[in-house]
Amino acid sequence: MARTYKEAGVDVKKAERFVSFIRKVTDLENGFGGVVELPKGYKQPLFVSSADGVGTKLMLAFLSGNHRTVGIDMVAMNVNDILCRGARPWFFLDYIACGRLDVKIMKDVMKGIVDGCNEAGCRLIGGETAEMPDFYRPGEYDLSGFCVGVVEKANLLPRKKAIKKGDVVLGLASSGLHSNGFSFVRKVLSSRELKKRAKELLTPTQIYVRPVLSLLEKVRVKQIAHITGGGFYLKAPKGLPQGLGLNIDSKSWPVPDIFIELSRRSGASKREMFSTFNMGIGMTLIVSRRDVDKALSYLSEGSCYVIGEVVEGKGVRIA
Amino acid sequence: MARTYKEAGVDVKKAERFVSFIRKVTDLENGFGGVVELPKGYKQPLFVSSADGVGTKLMLAFLSGNHRTVGIDMVAMNVNDILCRGARPWFFLDYIACGRLDVKIMKDVMKGIVDGCNEAGCRLIGGETAEMPDFYRPGEYDLSGFCVGVVEKANLLPRKKAIKKGDVVLGLASSGLHSNGFSFVRKVLSSRELKKRAKELLTPTQIYVRPVLSLLEKVRVKQIAHITGGGFYLKAPKGLPQGLGLNIDSKSWPVPDIFIELSRRSGASKREMFSTFNMGIGMTLIVSRRDVDKALSYLSEGSCYVIGEVVEGKGVRIA
Repeated sequence: MARTYKEAGVDVKKAERFVSFIRKVTDLENGFGGVVELPKGYKQPLFVSSADGVGTKLMLAFLSGNHRTVGIDMVAMNVNDILCRGARPWFFLDYIACGRLDVKIMKDVMKGIVDGCNEAGCRLIGGETAEMPDFYRPGEYDLSGFCVGVVEKANLLPRKKAIKKGDVVLGLASSGLHSNGFSFVRKVLSSRELKKRAKELLTPTQIYVRPVLSLLEKVRVKQIAHITGGGFYLKAPKGLPQGLGLNIDSKSWPVPDIFIELSRRSGASKREMFSTFNMGIGMTLIVSRRDVDKALSYLSEGSCYVIGEVVEGKGVRIA
Repeated sequence: MARTYKEAGVDVKKAERFVSFIRKVTDLENGFGGVVELPKGYKQPLFVSSADGVGTKLMLAFLSGNHRTVGIDMVAMNVNDILCRGARPWFFLDYIACGRLDVKIMKDVMKGIVDGCNEAGCRLIGGETAEMPDFYRPGEYDLSGFCVGVVEKANLLPRKKAIKKGDVVLGLASSGLHSNGFSFVRKVLSSRELKKRAKELLTPTQIYVRPVLSLLEKVRVKQIAHITGGGFYLKAPKGLPQGLGLNIDSKSWPVPDIFIELSRRSGASKREMFSTFNMGIGMTLIVSRRDVDKALSYLSEGSCYVIGEVVEGKGVRIA
């Protein structure tokens, strides 16, 4: 029988100390709700929001004891979505739920979130760390986040009416699996392999904010897609006008070994692989053919490929 | 061995169908990130954000099979926090993580979220439903949400400089346990009792948005506190100027039976009870003594009490 909340598994004082640590590494205020002012320089600002988590990639962190980068993944999953509307990430809030507050683990998780927010240029202004005994196993946690970005109305993506047959699809290299398909990976690789290869598998999701925002200032990008759950088939054609689809040439970029291995060992079809994984391309952008060279010149070599084009039809065909 | 993502436990098509249902009941767009325009009528808008979940109150939903109201709790936890800054809830995003997408359960959860957003007058513009096999047990899920509100800069709370010795603390009645202290409750009541009394225990958290926003237009409220984790001691004095504290008279409102029973059966001290539970008061407001009658006249009878005053000192004393 619990006589105190602490005995019942919830240590409010420890939680307060953890919040003090968070305050040191963030913009967090001591109050109800984070408060921000409208960013300057916008005539007709639109606000773009995203909520997302990391999925079962977290289980690789549990397995390996490396909790330092899943926070980056969590931020990446959100800010890359915001970027698809042409928006600049503005502020961020996190939600961490755990069984018992393990301060060492949670500090590592928070450091990853802070790293991700720094990389994306957005402020971490609040969040919630929930201690939920009996709900999460010791040392385990779930992680989600929420990002708000801003975009000038005239720059909102996709520019649906501007997308024409013959436009070109550019692909930005992924850093690996990113944060999708891990339930598949966990079925294909053995526990021993997962543990042994955790470092490689935990490579954090690429954050595309800096290069892409910089590109948007110089080149008229018409559509951006973040290749996540559902892969190319579901994400790449988002925002295309009716009657247009995409042809993607899968030989136009080097598919990283991990995807080839997963395909070989699982026996999954090409379609299944491209529906589940990013296959080496984390983000796609549509530009006019005449803007391709300019766009490529602004994006680092080896990280950007011409991977396909806009065609008459519907959906995505991958050759 | 999984050959498809579906065999690995993630059914993307089912998820898409669930998203179609969500679109029917919300403002959700089909794209990356929800997009909103700046609300009209603000000269210097400030944006107030919150992230929060429901904690282990969810386990009562699992135990009883009643998933219809935890969504209301989740919204309430967020919008009541936003309200503490004087802000009007503007838009909302949810994050639901489950082991396997049980559409019947998830529809009930979503309906609760929609009910909560309607009650709070805010738009549900996005969210994430994550299917995480092996992570959550079948039929179980975690739930969190993010809310952004707006407040005119001149109306931001607390009005720290205006708070004076002799100001009065008003208390708004809670609807029961709200969404805090459930790890304690689960240790004091047996599983059989929890199941039998689930309906009472699951009573959704009161959403104070409408009456309080309406009050703020008529009465100069100086501070608002949402009595959640850490209870009166941690929450009620937030934003008080240095050198001032609160005296609370616990005999000034009827403490609901459930708190008396939990206190008696656990043997927890009064201090522990008031640190863990709302004890019948879900929100406190500080007003000048001369504004008390006016404030009470605008708040429904029986739901608002004069419960204390601002005094010299520090923190909260409960007599």
